[in-house]
Amino acid sequence: MSHILIIGGSDAGISAALRAKEIDPAVMVTVVVADNYPNYSICGLPFYLSGEVPDWHDLAHRTQADIERAGIHLLLNQTAKSIDPQGKRVSTRDQSGSVTALSYDKLVIGTGAVSVRPRIGGLALPGVYPMRWMADALAVEQYLVEREPQSAVIIGGGYIGLEMADALTRRGLKVTVVEYFPSVLNTVDPAFGHSVQEELERHGMRVVTGITVERIEQQGNTLAVMGSHDFRADADLVLYATGVHPSTALAESAGVAMGVRGALRVNRAMETNIPDIYAAGDCVETWHRLLLTNTYLPLGTTAHKQGRVAGENAAGGHRKFAGSLGTQVVKVCDLVVAATGLREREATQAGFDPLEVETAAWDHKVYYPGAQTLQIRINGDRQTGRLLGAQMIGHRHAEIAKRIDVVAAAMTAEMTVDALMDLDLSYTPPLGTPWDAIQVSAQAWMNTKSRMPDKGEHHA
Amino acid sequence: MSHILIIGGSDAGISAALRAKEIDPAVMVTVVVADNYPNYSICGLPFYLSGEVPDWHDLAHRTQADIERAGIHLLLNQTAKSIDPQGKRVSTRDQSGSVTALSYDKLVIGTGAVSVRPRIGGLALPGVYPMRWMADALAVEQYLVEREPQSAVIIGGGYIGLEMADALTRRGLKVTVVEYFPSVLNTVDPAFGHSVQEELERHGMRVVTGITVERIEQQGNTLAVMGSHDFRADADLVLYATGVHPSTALAESAGVAMGVRGALRVNRAMETNIPDIYAAGDCVETWHRLLLTNTYLPLGTTAHKQGRVAGENAAGGHRKFAGSLGTQVVKVCDLVVAATGLREREATQAGFDPLEVETAAWDHKVYYPGAQTLQIRINGDRQTGRLLGAQMIGHRHAEIAKRIDVVAAAMTAEMTVDALMDLDLSYTPPLGTPWDAIQVSAQAWMNTKSRMPDKGEHHA
Repeated sequence: MSHILIIGGSDAGISAALRAKEIDPAVMVTVVVADNYPNYSICGLPFYLSGEVPDWHDLAHRTQADIERAGIHLLLNQTAKSIDPQGKRVSTRDQSGSVTALSYDKLVIGTGAVSVRPRIGGLALPGVYPMRWMADALAVEQYLVEREPQSAVIIGGGYIGLEMADALTRRGLKVTVVEYFPSVLNTVDPAFGHSVQEELERHGMRVVTGITVERIEQQGNTLAVMGSHDFRADADLVLYATGVHPSTALAESAGVAMGVRGALRVNRAMETNIPDIYAAGDCVETWHRLLLTNTYLPLGTTAHKQGRVAGENAAGGHRKFAGSLGTQVVKVCDLVVAATGLREREATQAGFDPLEVETAAWDHKVYYPGAQTLQIRINGDRQTGRLLGAQMIGHRHAEIAKRIDVVAAAMTAEMTVDALMDLDLSYTPPLGTPWDAIQVSAQAWMNTKSRMPDKGEHHA
Repeated sequence: MSHILIIGGSDAGISAALRAKEIDPAVMVTVVVADNYPNYSICGLPFYLSGEVPDWHDLAHRTQADIERAGIHLLLNQTAKSIDPQGKRVSTRDQSGSVTALSYDKLVIGTGAVSVRPRIGGLALPGVYPMRWMADALAVEQYLVEREPQSAVIIGGGYIGLEMADALTRRGLKVTVVEYFPSVLNTVDPAFGHSVQEELERHGMRVVTGITVERIEQQGNTLAVMGSHDFRADADLVLYATGVHPSTALAESAGVAMGVRGALRVNRAMETNIPDIYAAGDCVETWHRLLLTNTYLPLGTTAHKQGRVAGENAAGGHRKFAGSLGTQVVKVCDLVVAATGLREREATQAGFDPLEVETAAWDHKVYYPGAQTLQIRINGDRQTGRLLGAQMIGHRHAEIAKRIDVVAAAMTAEMTVDALMDLDLSYTPPLGTPWDAIQVSAQAWMNTKSRMPDKGEHHA
């Protein structure tokens, strides 16, 4: 019987396992899981720590029993220590230190990513935590319960940092967010980042941007976070969420080649350079549908898709990963921010001639109660009219997440901005407008473009 | 100066006027409006009568002043009586009976549709109203205020009938809905219609299906609605909303050719058979993107798009209407029902080999508070895998309207059902799942298809 061995029990690994069994129920599938939490939704950790999800067990996408019922063997609390590509064996170590050798026919590496450890002093102090894995969240929860911290500093104003700021504020803590860049949520336009900052402040948080945190010191019962421009904030708890880095040491030591930004190199079949070794998820580079090249875009959705492709191919299939557009969304307090595709700067770097236009539009007919405006930035190529990306921000009831999905679908089909006007979208006054907000923004883009001097001659 | 004359001041007519002025600010644009309510959102009438929109003036998409500021001449309370295509003149009559002759260079007909008058006795009785235009709504509102009816019978369980049932229930009336077909909301699957019926009943309405209403009688102070199977319901108010019929008499008398289902024939430039006469909106047939033929699908969104094309072309442009997918959505109490594309039966008639699969999926991660299931029916062609349509039903907070839009965008791009799996859609636990509900349903479709015997040989 053929054996597919999978290293990593998060999104990519479990997706690969499930798909392999779907494709070939006769194949044996084993997943080596470094902790005791297979298939946990790490995107849900902030909502556990906020108290919105009272029981952390509920964060499992599937229970251990579900996975095992699908015929998948789980080896929990086992760390893969080395891969022997010639002998097709992986050695693992459990918590007691005992070593096991596992043979494989096909290997899928889904080791994910780890929190970047910023280069600042004091990260090892009690009360200072990264925020990435289930174990991090359980440690913070224990600290919250036992130590009852009254205040927190969060280093990093990205998705996770802001979700954690929201969560700890709900939990009653006084929260300060410290961001290196001039605005939080650096993945979207600074104007949107500024709106998010105002939303955080409206909910009682302090937000400080443009600060390089230099060190954390224990001063009596307090943790003092100090940085550039004489920044100082005191707190009982410090979290850092300053980005992630692909977790590749195991694969590298086995000779797996590296790609962009320190991630494992893979082709669109999710094959590495080593025969019979696949890799997927936050540890690998990602094919970008618009850039037509590999980039590093660690996202749960992508990990699921890549894992599924790896699992299908490991089980004998021939599927290719279709690629990412970097589509993402985050809820911060009552605001939702979403983005897909390229921002103006990224598009310029990629050789496009982008024009990004911002518009305000209603989520539904303004006469019907509860109407909200959303801000939309549409990016398109001035030469070809091609749709290159969109960013949206607005109230959490403005159905922004699915509107960005409409744009993502349109980009997948390589539509022009103008073609958005022709989409037959749904309308009823409580839920939309006759021209959807996306189409209002497309029209604004067309109008702006038509008023601009034609740059086409420079490219002739 | 060139003169574009537009007959009809609702969605198609005003869209045409605005677009014509955008394309050529020098053109003279006149809109003949049969009533005093130009550019009113007739889709909003139920929400005015429910009390959710307290002031009916708010139902205007734009005010009269807005439209006139765009340089458009409005002739209110003027009915176009005849068109002379040779002399390029239209004669209109105002409420006093005085006749005016208007010359045109280009004419756009946007006369809309009228309520079908069902063949039942008693429609002229006091307290019996159609529900289509602003004047209908104002008459009903006056009746509600002056006569304080305690109960209503609504004949017709389509979109408007159900929205009115919801509205009058909110207004405190005891409502009975009578539907000819075996289930309400005949535009979607009967199982979905049944769920809608349950929702209406949960909100205190009585719903009776499979009934042919035969007559309405005044019996003392009461209106008695009687029909097949000994149906009888007594009420103080009766509304009928049993579909619409294109309003074409004026155009027909001028020699405009007819197309499908009694609608005016147009090409995709929205030109009729008569030179310099365009038509758009609920009075014309509609190009269907999947059927690749004309059909009759009167929808506000389509009227806006067709009007825009007609206005652009009347002003010298060369735009084509891209076509409809029949995308639509309705909110009934706390449920939302949406559909796009073809149902199984329609697809079979069109020569496809459809397979429609129903799936339940969560709108967002179940661990996050407020998660709702939605039911999705995906229709695809078994031979080619092509996506043919979708229907969805679920809670009004489940972002169903925009999810159907994602499917509509995918169908526009002629994607397969399988290709939905590859869409890079957004995810955050409060607003979605790593595989969106659409993708969960696509996967279910693929699984069902793979379990079915291959019918391909019959087509070889």
